[in-house]
Amino acid sequence: MTLLEQAKNGHITDAIQIVAEQEKCDPEWLRKEIAEGRIVIPQNINHSFEPMGIGNKLRVKINANIGTSPDHYDLDEELEKLKVAVAYGADSVMDLSTGGDLSAIRKALLEQSPVMVGTVPIYQVAAELLDKEKDIAEMTVDHLFESIEKQCREGVDYITAHCGVTQKAVDALKIQPRLLGVVSRGGSLLMKWMRIHQKENPLYEHYDRLLDIAYTYDVTLSLGDGLRPGCLADATDAGQIQELITLGELQQRALERNVQSMIEGPGHVPLNQIEANMRIQKTLCHGAPFYVLGPITTDIAPGYDHITSAIGGTLAAYYGANFLCYVTPSEHLCLPNIDDVREGVVAAKIAAHSADIALGIPGSMERDNRISECRSTLNWDELYETALDPILAKKRRNDSEDFSEDVCTMCGKLCAIKTLKN
Amino acid sequence: MTLLEQAKNGHITDAIQIVAEQEKCDPEWLRKEIAEGRIVIPQNINHSFEPMGIGNKLRVKINANIGTSPDHYDLDEELEKLKVAVAYGADSVMDLSTGGDLSAIRKALLEQSPVMVGTVPIYQVAAELLDKEKDIAEMTVDHLFESIEKQCREGVDYITAHCGVTQKAVDALKIQPRLLGVVSRGGSLLMKWMRIHQKENPLYEHYDRLLDIAYTYDVTLSLGDGLRPGCLADATDAGQIQELITLGELQQRALERNVQSMIEGPGHVPLNQIEANMRIQKTLCHGAPFYVLGPITTDIAPGYDHITSAIGGTLAAYYGANFLCYVTPSEHLCLPNIDDVREGVVAAKIAAHSADIALGIPGSMERDNRISECRSTLNWDELYETALDPILAKKRRNDSEDFSEDVCTMCGKLCAIKTLKN
Repeated sequence: MTLLEQAKNGHITDAIQIVAEQEKCDPEWLRKEIAEGRIVIPQNINHSFEPMGIGNKLRVKINANIGTSPDHYDLDEELEKLKVAVAYGADSVMDLSTGGDLSAIRKALLEQSPVMVGTVPIYQVAAELLDKEKDIAEMTVDHLFESIEKQCREGVDYITAHCGVTQKAVDALKIQPRLLGVVSRGGSLLMKWMRIHQKENPLYEHYDRLLDIAYTYDVTLSLGDGLRPGCLADATDAGQIQELITLGELQQRALERNVQSMIEGPGHVPLNQIEANMRIQKTLCHGAPFYVLGPITTDIAPGYDHITSAIGGTLAAYYGANFLCYVTPSEHLCLPNIDDVREGVVAAKIAAHSADIALGIPGSMERDNRISECRSTLNWDELYETALDPILAKKRRNDSEDFSEDVCTMCGKLCAIKTLKN
Repeated sequence: MTLLEQAKNGHITDAIQIVAEQEKCDPEWLRKEIAEGRIVIPQNINHSFEPMGIGNKLRVKINANIGTSPDHYDLDEELEKLKVAVAYGADSVMDLSTGGDLSAIRKALLEQSPVMVGTVPIYQVAAELLDKEKDIAEMTVDHLFESIEKQCREGVDYITAHCGVTQKAVDALKIQPRLLGVVSRGGSLLMKWMRIHQKENPLYEHYDRLLDIAYTYDVTLSLGDGLRPGCLADATDAGQIQELITLGELQQRALERNVQSMIEGPGHVPLNQIEANMRIQKTLCHGAPFYVLGPITTDIAPGYDHITSAIGGTLAAYYGANFLCYVTPSEHLCLPNIDDVREGVVAAKIAAHSADIALGIPGSMERDNRISECRSTLNWDELYETALDPILAKKRRNDSEDFSEDVCTMCGKLCAIKTLKN
């Protein structure tokens, strides 16, 4: 039985108990939220780690995408990225590798990760075809589903599947032509396959096959937004919303089949459209957990998109997003390195935590108040320890002149705290 | 006659004409907004540069604080900070120097700055006393006003004066005791002086003297928030709001005296209190331009407060703030260096620009759309040129493997844009 099935049957499983303790919430309430699809606890039957919940009224979670590219693959580096991501606060990692021995990389990450691991199985399909110098058009339906099953068998906790890139959704793109078209890798691969074969998206047409696999290994489906906008100008258009309607329908089918699911969302969204995007997801998708990438609030800052996405992510989480996928400074430019992973995780954590505070999530102000107490007593050592990045905070102050004073060298002897103490 | 006086008299001055062209707005509408105190164009009669407007319905502006400390002063470095700040998009700089030859630094910055320059005169008073190993208690009222007059005579375009730190506001702090007390340098210096002398704040008691000086040189008053909260826990409390009530009263007195003014605001504010903070400023201060520092939305991220403040700043600007003071990564830790200035300006610019787009400021989407067009055609060179930081964007991509491909090395051969082109 899957976790969802047990929750529906009224059982408070160990995982539900653990998550209720983490979140300081009532286990019976949590069970009900899971049973009704508003919270998920992604955990494959073949993967052992401390479970975590994502969804309604829980602390906002963050994911770090790691993984190789065909031009750059080094298993040790990926394991180091995993370590750094978790150390700075990632609640999940996704292995998006497309270069090197993909199965070996995934296996190592699954073994070593203390947090849930997600993947996008179609990437491996595409990478294997590329290796053989074949086009995505040559993908067979069986190859796609076998690849999904393999990854689920290996222990992946959740997978992104772009089931909503249907003919209907693709047709909707013609109603409102886009400046930047389709920017999702999975979405574009499926669209190309559909165009060449003149067939429906196999992940939609054979959705029951996907549900069977997910049910077998208790894998959570992350229903991908293959038509998410790739720039502000394309935000909240007919293609995006048409796909979202379908994702809502698929979420209900997953719930009936006792498979947990969450919904993926944009992307690039102007600040004034974020609230509407969150609210419409909640109505169309029956309150299912919402997993957003960004959203970034301007397109003009390549190199700083951890900041643009922290802005949009904070507001998204405040209005209902439950899970923030980090964006690193390297987004739109190159594969993230280890520093990018750290900066991306910290920025996403800032966004999630800022939203937690604004939403009144129990206990969320405690760490802020500890920092503020340290500031009022000029207790630098405890301040560093409590900070999101203790190493950087300490280094910055210690590298400045005259740091031996008890004040911070920004104000020096004019420190307001000291002025009023003397 | 000051600009405000001329605007009241119905004159569309050269400065008003220039700003109307910059902002693509009607000069007569702009004149009226200035006459009624909702927009300011800070420009000292002794300072020549291309003027810029701040306030209602205009593009959101950003300020970069630069300046020396007693432990670190180097004029060339400050001039370099000025150059970098302006190059990355600062619309204003404030010279907050407290170390070295303050007059010489200010003179050089005023000569070389192509944008408005602000100062906080009480810093120089405090620094001069410190030099003589004297306490702020030994400040005389004449010393304070002479220092203000000197800076205004020299050409400073706007000055922060913490006129609202009154006995009444200080008393209000007792109604709601704070976790972190007072964190404004100017505010704390005045409070200490008031406590020791058992007297009212001289900037409030002798406010007419301040107005006379400001009128003489057509200096804009930035009415400082000396009691702004220094941590989330202290946000929007009795002390802060009591001071804001007084600032609204002083804004009206300035308007009557034909002196332009704007209001300074917090600081550290949880996301869910930002809208209320902006709206209450607009009602209490009669729609005067609002100049906010941050606000940062969590206290746990020293070393990343350019990000926490970009989050709060975007939302603040969306709800009515007109002028964002940057916060750099070094905030709360040390004096900013040149990299900090760049990162702080870019983060503040992202915030201001994201708000401009959300508010529908004319023309604000043009740059985003150019970038998106470059992405759709994989035109990297024009993309770099259009980006907020062309140097960094180009460097990041060029440092990655296989950048000679036309795609970005994040997705490589799986680039969604290319997939759908083939």
